[in-house]
Amino acid sequence: MSCFDPLKFRQQFPLLQKHVNEKPLIYFDNGATTQKPQCVLDAYQDYYKASNANVHRASHVLSARATRAFEEAREAVRTFINAASSKEIIWTKGTTEGINLIAGSWGESQLKAGDEIVLSYSEHHANIVPWQLVAEKTGAVIKILPLSNNGTLDESKLAEVITARTKVVACAHISNVIGRINPLEKIIARAKAVGAITVIDGAQAIAHLSVDVQALDCDFYLFSAHKMFGPTGVGVLYGRLALLEQMPPYQGGGEMIQTVSFAGTSFNELPFKFEAGTPNIAGVVAFAQAVRFLRTHQGQAFRDYEQKQITYMMHKLQNIHGIRFIVSEAPDIPVFSFTLRGHHNHDIATALDSRGIAIRSGHHCAMPLMEYLKLSGCLRLSLAPYNTFAEIDEVIEVLTAIVRGEEPGGEHKVASVGALTEEKAEGQADESKIMLAKFAAIKGWDSRHREIMLLGKTLERMDKAERNEQTLIAGCESLAWLNYRRDGEARYHFKADSDAKVIRGLLVIVLAAFNHKTAAEIAAFDIQGYFEQLGLLQHLSPSRGNGVQAIVKKIKQLASQD
Amino acid sequence: MSCFDPLKFRQQFPLLQKHVNEKPLIYFDNGATTQKPQCVLDAYQDYYKASNANVHRASHVLSARATRAFEEAREAVRTFINAASSKEIIWTKGTTEGINLIAGSWGESQLKAGDEIVLSYSEHHANIVPWQLVAEKTGAVIKILPLSNNGTLDESKLAEVITARTKVVACAHISNVIGRINPLEKIIARAKAVGAITVIDGAQAIAHLSVDVQALDCDFYLFSAHKMFGPTGVGVLYGRLALLEQMPPYQGGGEMIQTVSFAGTSFNELPFKFEAGTPNIAGVVAFAQAVRFLRTHQGQAFRDYEQKQITYMMHKLQNIHGIRFIVSEAPDIPVFSFTLRGHHNHDIATALDSRGIAIRSGHHCAMPLMEYLKLSGCLRLSLAPYNTFAEIDEVIEVLTAIVRGEEPGGEHKVASVGALTEEKAEGQADESKIMLAKFAAIKGWDSRHREIMLLGKTLERMDKAERNEQTLIAGCESLAWLNYRRDGEARYHFKADSDAKVIRGLLVIVLAAFNHKTAAEIAAFDIQGYFEQLGLLQHLSPSRGNGVQAIVKKIKQLASQD
Repeated sequence: MSCFDPLKFRQQFPLLQKHVNEKPLIYFDNGATTQKPQCVLDAYQDYYKASNANVHRASHVLSARATRAFEEAREAVRTFINAASSKEIIWTKGTTEGINLIAGSWGESQLKAGDEIVLSYSEHHANIVPWQLVAEKTGAVIKILPLSNNGTLDESKLAEVITARTKVVACAHISNVIGRINPLEKIIARAKAVGAITVIDGAQAIAHLSVDVQALDCDFYLFSAHKMFGPTGVGVLYGRLALLEQMPPYQGGGEMIQTVSFAGTSFNELPFKFEAGTPNIAGVVAFAQAVRFLRTHQGQAFRDYEQKQITYMMHKLQNIHGIRFIVSEAPDIPVFSFTLRGHHNHDIATALDSRGIAIRSGHHCAMPLMEYLKLSGCLRLSLAPYNTFAEIDEVIEVLTAIVRGEEPGGEHKVASVGALTEEKAEGQADESKIMLAKFAAIKGWDSRHREIMLLGKTLERMDKAERNEQTLIAGCESLAWLNYRRDGEARYHFKADSDAKVIRGLLVIVLAAFNHKTAAEIAAFDIQGYFEQLGLLQHLSPSRGNGVQAIVKKIKQLASQD
Repeated sequence: MSCFDPLKFRQQFPLLQKHVNEKPLIYFDNGATTQKPQCVLDAYQDYYKASNANVHRASHVLSARATRAFEEAREAVRTFINAASSKEIIWTKGTTEGINLIAGSWGESQLKAGDEIVLSYSEHHANIVPWQLVAEKTGAVIKILPLSNNGTLDESKLAEVITARTKVVACAHISNVIGRINPLEKIIARAKAVGAITVIDGAQAIAHLSVDVQALDCDFYLFSAHKMFGPTGVGVLYGRLALLEQMPPYQGGGEMIQTVSFAGTSFNELPFKFEAGTPNIAGVVAFAQAVRFLRTHQGQAFRDYEQKQITYMMHKLQNIHGIRFIVSEAPDIPVFSFTLRGHHNHDIATALDSRGIAIRSGHHCAMPLMEYLKLSGCLRLSLAPYNTFAEIDEVIEVLTAIVRGEEPGGEHKVASVGALTEEKAEGQADESKIMLAKFAAIKGWDSRHREIMLLGKTLERMDKAERNEQTLIAGCESLAWLNYRRDGEARYHFKADSDAKVIRGLLVIVLAAFNHKTAAEIAAFDIQGYFEQLGLLQHLSPSRGNGVQAIVKKIKQLASQD
């Protein structure tokens, strides 16, 4: 029995009721992580207030209660994915650890030089790097399945790529960028035909599809709690019993042992063999609540609602001038990836952020896919069933305004360049003070964002030749370049540039602090305090997302060598 | 500035205000995990209600907020242990994972056949098994430091055991059983003298001592949040920068990479190189609150209070008849390990539990230490500064009563054997019903526990010869034996026994359900429902702590082969 009312569903998520950047939050970054319903937060607190103890280890009642809750959670997950036995459910800290466990335990013990590991171009880094590490250790070779035009793994290439040399086929159920269901039935059948095992990364699928691991007939299936309304730090590795039993332990420690002695150690039975150390008990218990929550809602009405989101969003997006979808067909889950001609992804994301809209831009931990698509990155809107049609309308409206140049992310608006540039030549020490005075008068992030975009227009661009490998400082979402000269008075004169307008604006702010100064002055300047005073610090987190902190680091480093 | 008021401190822990088994909870199992103050639970909720997003990945404000909170937590930990750089602070899921990371990354890349790994007899399994796994892979050899009479590592043997062949010395700051501070200064100095690295398991020390990793001058230091008032699923690996920089990655995935391509992948800078995948963000943020909480309180007054607990407890315990301390000298932290002559540890722990007192009995994940001490296990009372002197008095009073035979854990009380045995020969199908009727009339776990102890006295003991390897079914805290014969009518007649009285009582209950039945009857019997109806299920969790579920499993398995 399922019952799905989008508004009632939404009301259970406290963060969705909040404002960010003085605007009601529109959270379209669900592919990265979902928000959490109150019942999950309550389950976490209730556990600590009524049952907290270490599990499997003591005979007192709290420990029995904690163990029972912990093992009931395992059973809830078993039912949720229809595994044959709860011994097949291994707790991990997330999908990434699960894949590392398989690559480390199964891979290192089974793979030999020349054996082939088949991946696809659209895999998340979590389903690439562990295999690269094990390939390096064992001499196994990675082969890549190409994609068909609709973005899924190319069925016509299965027989060619998956051969008698293939020992493992690892792919996503749904790519986090493309949002389309891969033809698992055919992939798994082909893998079986050649005797290869199958590892399915279900991180993006699990919150949207009804997953039945026995029907899929895969050997491993992995997912993370935090992408399905559960907490961070909890994941599930489903493995076929016969395989798990053959595999050596991955990590050693308490709980995974039967007996320990310096003469020799014997290991515990499944699932404990793979769960060394005190597990994330409270996280697992809260996750069980997320599973029950999702089970209650995730019926046909839930899926119908997601299909309506997809249809509505695709229709609206298609009307935006200059949009280029990563895949032209509609996705199977509400994940929309695209670029906008003439606009830098980072500028679009930042402009949306200034309006309270959270989306992702960048490579989405899928660099090989970006390389395959010949893109440096893209924008991604990923929705959950708590997102409303009104939110979609609002996002489309802002995107349209940006494309039309009516928003600061746009390229057509003529800026009223501030007084800053004229004052640049003289009184360098005051540039940062001028900047502080300018920003002190501006309230709200939306307005500060507009100011940053205007500042960006005042930045003297670097020549194309000067924007080279030597001057490049790469961020995750945009590129930045830094060049400098040191004059006879030991003052540093910097030039900086970026492919994103918003970063150019931020660079003007950074240069105001450092330019035309001596090494000692640069070292003495409290740049984080300056960002704090400017009200920028929350937007200049230690994120690798923008290259600004990387530029700051580089400048400090150059000056420190003086 | 520290301010420590034990009662105010205690009031911040919601679970400590609760009753268990109809008695006020006395929680003396802090070595396994500590309880959590409300401020830590609030920090967790607040994070999800105000800042939740994935970290380091997006330019929207929630992500910047989450990243900032996450990195501020790292800085809080850096300050707490006085690490030189926050790059030296790696988030793990706990101490166990931290040691596995070092053994996996540093160990597998650096150790060669014949190299020596020095451990001690008093290590937790978490600081043994990872080294056994890496020794097996590399051919390195494990050497053991013996203990001195006071339970610490024997300083006089350092030069003999730690030699030019030693590549790593791994030991606990404080053993979880012995509670004494190991002579780290001398151990680390000796390791340095021979060019070995040092790995310090700080899991038991961190909540009690002020740890300064630079003053210690160790290479690695590990601890878990959940043993210092923080959440489960979060741990810290401190590593010296130069070593961390040389080490290959441990797990692969998002966040730990600089660039990924099928042609080759480059890794991110520290600390991110070792943090693949979405971390336990909310857990880390809540942990930072636990660190701040502990910093506020953990001054001289806090340590003075712990010293008073130690002195008071030791004085009281010494007066208990038949007590045998693991180490005769007082511990450095309030951890007290002992056995009571003539009493099974499991019986003592269960009797205390029935009075609302949570302690640990068993091998404490330190089997080699038990072997070294020639013990099958011991009792451990481990206190935190929220424990009161009144609680100590209460525990001592109950222990004394047990030893005097005034409590059901004692051996002197004469049992009024129930009507059960007489009815045993006839009407076998009804035995479980008689048991249900008997327990239906008993309210409360304390009384049910007394009944179980009485039932235990009715169990026909097995001959010593019959209690052998073939019939043994080992639990973690006690031993059990099962024997059977199958008669001409295909009925199973079981005999069972245990070294713990409480388990003997539970075995009577189990046999009432299964004895003198056919395979079909055994298979059909809903034993978990029976336990539930008896009000025992919360005390018969899937814990390996007692052998009862293992006996049930064995009986079911025997009958299924029929």
